Amino acid sequence: MTETLRPGQTIGILGGGQLGRMLAVAASRLGLNCHVYDPAPGGPAAEVCAASTTAAWDDEAALRAFAGAVDVVTYEFENVPAASLDLIESLVPIRPGRRALAVSQDRIDEKQFLQNLGLTTAPFAQVDDATTLDAALSRIGAPAILKTRRFGYDGKGQARIMTPGDAAGALAEIKDAPAILEGFVDFSHEVSVIGARGIDGAVACFDPGENRHEDGILRETIVPARLSASQRTDAVLLAARILTALDYVGVMGVELFVTPRGLVVNEIAPRVHNSGHWTQNGCLIDQFEQHIRAVAGWPLGDGARHSDVTMENLIGDDIDRILEIAGTQSAIHLYGKAEARPGRKMGHVNRLTGPAAR
Amino acid sequence: MTETLRPGQTIGILGGGQLGRMLAVAASRLGLNCHVYDPAPGGPAAEVCAASTTAAWDDEAALRAFAGAVDVVTYEFENVPAASLDLIESLVPIRPGRRALAVSQDRIDEKQFLQNLGLTTAPFAQVDDATTLDAALSRIGAPAILKTRRFGYDGKGQARIMTPGDAAGALAEIKDAPAILEGFVDFSHEVSVIGARGIDGAVACFDPGENRHEDGILRETIVPARLSASQRTDAVLLAARILTALDYVGVMGVELFVTPRGLVVNEIAPRVHNSGHWTQNGCLIDQFEQHIRAVAGWPLGDGARHSDVTMENLIGDDIDRILEIAGTQSAIHLYGKAEARPGRKMGHVNRLTGPAAR
Repeated sequence: MTETLRPGQTIGILGGGQLGRMLAVAASRLGLNCHVYDPAPGGPAAEVCAASTTAAWDDEAALRAFAGAVDVVTYEFENVPAASLDLIESLVPIRPGRRALAVSQDRIDEKQFLQNLGLTTAPFAQVDDATTLDAALSRIGAPAILKTRRFGYDGKGQARIMTPGDAAGALAEIKDAPAILEGFVDFSHEVSVIGARGIDGAVACFDPGENRHEDGILRETIVPARLSASQRTDAVLLAARILTALDYVGVMGVELFVTPRGLVVNEIAPRVHNSGHWTQNGCLIDQFEQHIRAVAGWPLGDGARHSDVTMENLIGDDIDRILEIAGTQSAIHLYGKAEARPGRKMGHVNRLTGPAAR
Repeated sequence: MTETLRPGQTIGILGGGQLGRMLAVAASRLGLNCHVYDPAPGGPAAEVCAASTTAAWDDEAALRAFAGAVDVVTYEFENVPAASLDLIESLVPIRPGRRALAVSQDRIDEKQFLQNLGLTTAPFAQVDDATTLDAALSRIGAPAILKTRRFGYDGKGQARIMTPGDAAGALAEIKDAPAILEGFVDFSHEVSVIGARGIDGAVACFDPGENRHEDGILRETIVPARLSASQRTDAVLLAARILTALDYVGVMGVELFVTPRGLVVNEIAPRVHNSGHWTQNGCLIDQFEQHIRAVAGWPLGDGARHSDVTMENLIGDDIDRILEIAGTQSAIHLYGKAEARPGRKMGHVNRLTGPAAR
């Protein structure tokens, strides 16, 4: 393949959930086809794609056929096994590149990478067992939070330690997995920056959004976020520094804590991000199209915000209210999931709350 | 079925072109599935749908299977044969209903319907042969335009008559098909109103857009249109009168000539319309979602315009400039057509030209 895809060429997407679905819709606008790979059948993305593969991550024949059928591969899911990626990468380019995935798959590597860039993170220590957890607690103090190094999402794989006496219970809760102890950060609120970097090195960041969580799951993102002008600039510069350091191609979500002493990086996600869903109705070009443009080697689009937006996730049986919500002034984005389990993200809605300040 | 579709139910779409493609994408946002029926394989819509049928309009078995697989049927193409619609309608509801289709399929019925509503149209007369054409020309005068009663689009099936001497040539050009002679209307510009009517009778119209044609094909739609406040009100009231008279459910395009003596109705299209593509980037809810909401029995959405927009069609080899266009501040919407023939609509772009006046 060449660096730049032409209309009619195909992007492979690893992971077939709602992020893959919205990436595929964005690609269709640019005349690009998508082919989704996911171990589970009938996911949200396959419904809107011309092609999909249902096969395990270790199915070498399926991975080879998939790589042979596409012109570039991206992912909506950062925990694809390294061996699968090795095989794919031997056949077709992967964007964003492997370094971003490696860094974000491991919470300790991620924090080390961020600190090496001169960015502030929560204090942290590696935890492998009860002994290292005791040492970490002595250094960092309680309250703190114990997280698995890998495979965490939506508050899963986490346990709070309010006093040292909670240590044994916390280790049991995460099933003695390799872990990180993170000190609590005294923050007023969380914001995220959705940044994009093109294959030419150009960087474009969407306006930061302010996130509100419930039970460890994102509930709302409100744009504009409560930030001073200098904080807003800091947030964007910091995201750009991360993107450039990783020679990144695509969209990344960067979660930041706002504290009296500045911005603290919580975590990075090497993909389109739930806190960027507001861009679908607040900007000419949304995060999904921005990612597809980058991965396809196209110029980044105009991500300027035309409106203030509140994005609300529809979680579990929120979906039962869908016709009532349809009667309000909001744009609905459902993921086509048949079963509404508690805590499951079923869709989201965007409400415009006014014109953007210009 | 009930009047109202739930997420997971399926809308059948007759016609699998770009309008069907954009309807299917809008339906996916609402968690609704689409099943496209088209005689030609590999059209733009099938690529973004979970299900499609490729079969002739007179394939009864295929029509029955299609009707059995969907919960309601709509169309993106108004020239589906009546016999096919009869069969489908015996099995599943069609929205918008048959009356709108019948009226818009025949230029004489359409003009008669509009005049019966008290609306102004171009002067017209029925033409069946050279004799009736001569009589029509005596009454209406030249210049005038001879159009086939049925199956015209993008300027096809039309011939101009500048002087009575052009009559024979014009009849030959439209191959002696049953025809209508329309007098020229002295208009300054053309606008169109994209109107929607819900199953509950609620009407919502998008702001009128101003259309610029080249070689009989829409080239640009500019919003806002040049209209006085009272013309703007007239345009919307007139569209609402048409929708209500037809007990219409869905989106309709109404083309209007702006003249010194008021608005003259050019034609109506009982479907989403090229001149409404600007709504994809100028409004929270676009014409495609508005149509799907109506057809699914959902409440109409918020079609207020947040931005001024210029929509430009990409026709024929315009598509070769796509990467150059991607580098400008515009939203690209391609239709996934492989071959760029002259005059073929390959996609469109929307440019935001400023915030809407509020």
